[in-house]
Amino acid sequence: MAEQMKRIVLAARPQGEPKLTDFRLETSDIPDVPAGGILVKVLWQSLDPYMRGRMDESKSYAAAVPIGGTMEGGCVGEVVASDNPKFAPGDVVEGRFGWCTHAAVDGAGIRKIDPSIAPIQTAIGVLGMPGITAYVGLLDHGRPKDGETLVVAAATGAVGSLVGQLGKIKGMRVVGVAGGPEKCAFAVDELGFDACIDHYAAADGDAMREALAAECPDGIDVYFENVAGKTLQGVIPLMNVWGRIPVCGMISQYNMSGFGMAGGDGPDMLPKLWRTILVQRLSVRGFIITDHYDRFPAFLDEVSGYIRDGRVKYRESITEGIENAPQAFIDMLKGGNFGKTLIKTA
Amino acid sequence: MAEQMKRIVLAARPQGEPKLTDFRLETSDIPDVPAGGILVKVLWQSLDPYMRGRMDESKSYAAAVPIGGTMEGGCVGEVVASDNPKFAPGDVVEGRFGWCTHAAVDGAGIRKIDPSIAPIQTAIGVLGMPGITAYVGLLDHGRPKDGETLVVAAATGAVGSLVGQLGKIKGMRVVGVAGGPEKCAFAVDELGFDACIDHYAAADGDAMREALAAECPDGIDVYFENVAGKTLQGVIPLMNVWGRIPVCGMISQYNMSGFGMAGGDGPDMLPKLWRTILVQRLSVRGFIITDHYDRFPAFLDEVSGYIRDGRVKYRESITEGIENAPQAFIDMLKGGNFGKTLIKTA
Repeated sequence: MAEQMKRIVLAARPQGEPKLTDFRLETSDIPDVPAGGILVKVLWQSLDPYMRGRMDESKSYAAAVPIGGTMEGGCVGEVVASDNPKFAPGDVVEGRFGWCTHAAVDGAGIRKIDPSIAPIQTAIGVLGMPGITAYVGLLDHGRPKDGETLVVAAATGAVGSLVGQLGKIKGMRVVGVAGGPEKCAFAVDELGFDACIDHYAAADGDAMREALAAECPDGIDVYFENVAGKTLQGVIPLMNVWGRIPVCGMISQYNMSGFGMAGGDGPDMLPKLWRTILVQRLSVRGFIITDHYDRFPAFLDEVSGYIRDGRVKYRESITEGIENAPQAFIDMLKGGNFGKTLIKTA
Repeated sequence: MAEQMKRIVLAARPQGEPKLTDFRLETSDIPDVPAGGILVKVLWQSLDPYMRGRMDESKSYAAAVPIGGTMEGGCVGEVVASDNPKFAPGDVVEGRFGWCTHAAVDGAGIRKIDPSIAPIQTAIGVLGMPGITAYVGLLDHGRPKDGETLVVAAATGAVGSLVGQLGKIKGMRVVGVAGGPEKCAFAVDELGFDACIDHYAAADGDAMREALAAECPDGIDVYFENVAGKTLQGVIPLMNVWGRIPVCGMISQYNMSGFGMAGGDGPDMLPKLWRTILVQRLSVRGFIITDHYDRFPAFLDEVSGYIRDGRVKYRESITEGIENAPQAFIDMLKGGNFGKTLIKTA
């Protein structure tokens, strides 16, 4: 029997945390190269928290994955056959091929990767979507200034780790939040953060505020938001006048009913947030990175330079085999990963 | 007995809504003109919602009024004696003289008013602090575009009425929120708003959302925030992608414990707001107008032109006598005013 392609489809819409039964592995024949298109063999697949949002039907910035549809995601693969003059067999490419081993696509939105810059899987990590998310969110929306204090959670994750390192390069005091002493030690010892708070040791927003206050003696100027929840609650009272909050994600809310739209358990924290925005003249700015790809060339140029120089480091959390992607995704949402979460597809 | 000066001092810090016993009328001799300064007889005194914040001790952008201290506020008065070469008896001036009939000051921060532009009390209204608040909040932070939809509450108040009229001048669809059918009719018939919703007819955030949705068929692009509460809750689900929310005030929170810092009654609306900021890529910007007085010349030039042309109208809610200022202030916080709230001091 010839080699078959595998893909992971959405079997059911998760209620709260995704379960393995919300996914299904399907196999089928490997498709032919389409007329004018390319056939790609996927080598690496990205797992990112935003994918949780695509599993829900509620209104969002992108359409939901349909039931029975292939889970979406960025991948790096190798062109195995081409009927498109822009691509040749052997080319390494990045594209949104989804959770699958092979993809027959027309070539639109596919980017050729130069393997000499860095390992190819960085094209879906520090030099790809998570990287530009950190870059645009911190530099364009966070507007860092020398000597200011930055707080970023998921500090060893694909986005947070670059946010913090860019903050250090821009002269900021950088305080991370991460899950467990091992990740915190990595953030400080390897990534160069000034401090990192273990969120497992902070039971609630008040405890988080105390822990943050101890590490942010001059308050917080930029809070790069990717978790919400108790970290946000701890941050609010410490925000300085003119502070900026780029809102990139909110992983602690992704499993809430309707992604938080139904309201959380009381007390209502909105009045406190709202008053702080007014009194401290905060700028809060939500952003979706696909709106900002005009910044890709500047990002790639600057950050690949930092990687070459060793000023930016990255860490990967690799799971082998597409059949293990659902469990790896479930684990990542709970913080079980350590660094950029990747599936080594082939 | 010679004429005496009167002033209203803060007698006690209010618990929730201010009461008359939180204020005290004091009389004393009229002071002499200070060396190098001026003696002013107050003609008009402004009452503004922000003053509620100055009565609390919790951390804010300005110091609290001390117990026994004169309540703060902007006024228009006449110079009755001067030892300062920049001022002469008879000059009409605007300054933060407070809730009082006379003030002996050094002249710093005092602005001479040209009575030929408009009635002098507009210097603490549509051509003063409330006016520049509307101007900077809508134009600089709201960034209105022709054809977009603007929602503003307190639609007949000093700030809201100018926000809406500027929105119309900039080509927006303008939907106000005000208390009662009389104010709503004024907003539409006199101020030229496209629609105005009576918030007394909307029991909660859901009802407000329905009422707003009916008047905002293309969603909301700019929400000028000056009330919070159920209006904000109704607005959140209707905000369009790239929407802007200048946060100018939150009158519905001013009487909450700690101005909302202690948290409101559940459910927690913060997750819903936060998700909307992300998914709709909103810009939320708190501002305090005293940071933006560099914009005063441009504001005065543009808006006094609109007043001369009749394109901007304003309405005043006048109470005579400083001894009636506390009750007028209490009424204003409950929406009992109709237009810019003024005390005719002399």
